[in-house]
Amino acid sequence: MSAQEIFSKLKDEFDIVGAQGVHRLELKGLSVSIEESDGVGRALESWLGKWLENNNIYYDTPDSTQEPPDYILSDQNPKKHFLEVKAFRSTSSPGFDLANFEAFCDSLLKSPHRLDADYLIFAYSLEGSQITIDDIWLKKIWEITGSSSNWPLKVQDKRGTIYNIRPVTWYSDHSASTPPFDSKQEFVETVYQTLVEYNGQEKSGWFDEVRQAYNTYRERIGKGDLIREL
Amino acid sequence: MSAQEIFSKLKDEFDIVGAQGVHRLELKGLSVSIEESDGVGRALESWLGKWLENNNIYYDTPDSTQEPPDYILSDQNPKKHFLEVKAFRSTSSPGFDLANFEAFCDSLLKSPHRLDADYLIFAYSLEGSQITIDDIWLKKIWEITGSSSNWPLKVQDKRGTIYNIRPVTWYSDHSASTPPFDSKQEFVETVYQTLVEYNGQEKSGWFDEVRQAYNTYRERIGKGDLIREL
Repeated sequence: MSAQEIFSKLKDEFDIVGAQGVHRLELKGLSVSIEESDGVGRALESWLGKWLENNNIYYDTPDSTQEPPDYILSDQNPKKHFLEVKAFRSTSSPGFDLANFEAFCDSLLKSPHRLDADYLIFAYSLEGSQITIDDIWLKKIWEITGSSSNWPLKVQDKRGTIYNIRPVTWYSDHSASTPPFDSKQEFVETVYQTLVEYNGQEKSGWFDEVRQAYNTYRERIGKGDLIREL
Repeated sequence: MSAQEIFSKLKDEFDIVGAQGVHRLELKGLSVSIEESDGVGRALESWLGKWLENNNIYYDTPDSTQEPPDYILSDQNPKKHFLEVKAFRSTSSPGFDLANFEAFCDSLLKSPHRLDADYLIFAYSLEGSQITIDDIWLKKIWEITGSSSNWPLKVQDKRGTIYNIRPVTWYSDHSASTPPFDSKQEFVETVYQTLVEYNGQEKSGWFDEVRQAYNTYRERIGKGDLIREL
């Protein structure tokens, strides 16, 4: 089942928006409802796996949970389709990590299909220990990333070191925030600008390498929407 | 209550080693036992807060959960005592983050008492979704850190960038692994060597600044075990 079909099923059939729940740890008879949001994203990811099983939807997971993606879906492609699960509290702007910046740049050379991954994103609220799902989206990475003042690409930056790619507030009216990119092309070009600004000329071949790897992959699966030259 | 008293109560009275439990997320009637270890550490930290409350043990938390420590205990010191909670799967070596390396170095200048923080560490196993607490320790940071081949201090290093301070396997017989430091002095000196190797001469004043800040704090609370000059 494709990511889009899973999304429709979860949103329209299961009616997940408005769903309520609780996150608990029980240990030696002492059950604690966890009022902190830290583990909710990971717990929702596990929950989704069980929900997929209950609905007889095929999925696989990578050999290491440290590696992307969260879930691998079957679809018509020779390469399996990546589904990443993210979550954030709806009282704040989304601040989750999309990927380690440099690892992401490297991985696109070997796994250009990672660019086509779908991001299933939950917004939830937490009152005491009650979790409520407030919204859900299915997005491509360029639909949830944008520019920033520090670097061409919005990233988590500590003391000049770039750690992770971070989302912009893609669902706002953008009067007060940065809008997401318009296209995959714009995203890849901005990643490239950021990489060269950060790492210098040694990375100047990155764009063409990614473009060729991605386009070769897209042509093999018979799809268009290729990356154009700079 | 001091960290040592809490540790004794948890270990000897509550008998936490061997305790079993489960980590769950229930959402719209679908309850999932989480079989991944990712959120267990954070859940154990929440669980500990509830256990402290049930035992009428005072604690406070910092204004932001992003800031250290996990818990602030009252004790006789004018500065409150820091308790950090960590957890790892007992099938692996401990790989949790002790602190962001550079933020930790900076914070010691303003909060030298952070050096005296206690680390309450759970080792657990996970069979299916059943969590078992296999061991528990209360340690100072220099009792769980050591050297490495890449840097004088064992840290998480990606592509030459230092991210976090990581523990050594402090409980092994050390025939095959790096032993922890012998003293606070050795730890601070090694942090200093790492900082200078990483950041260069601009950090050469760090050791004396930390030494003075820490010793001033220790003298104010009427305690010895000061940091000596290099």
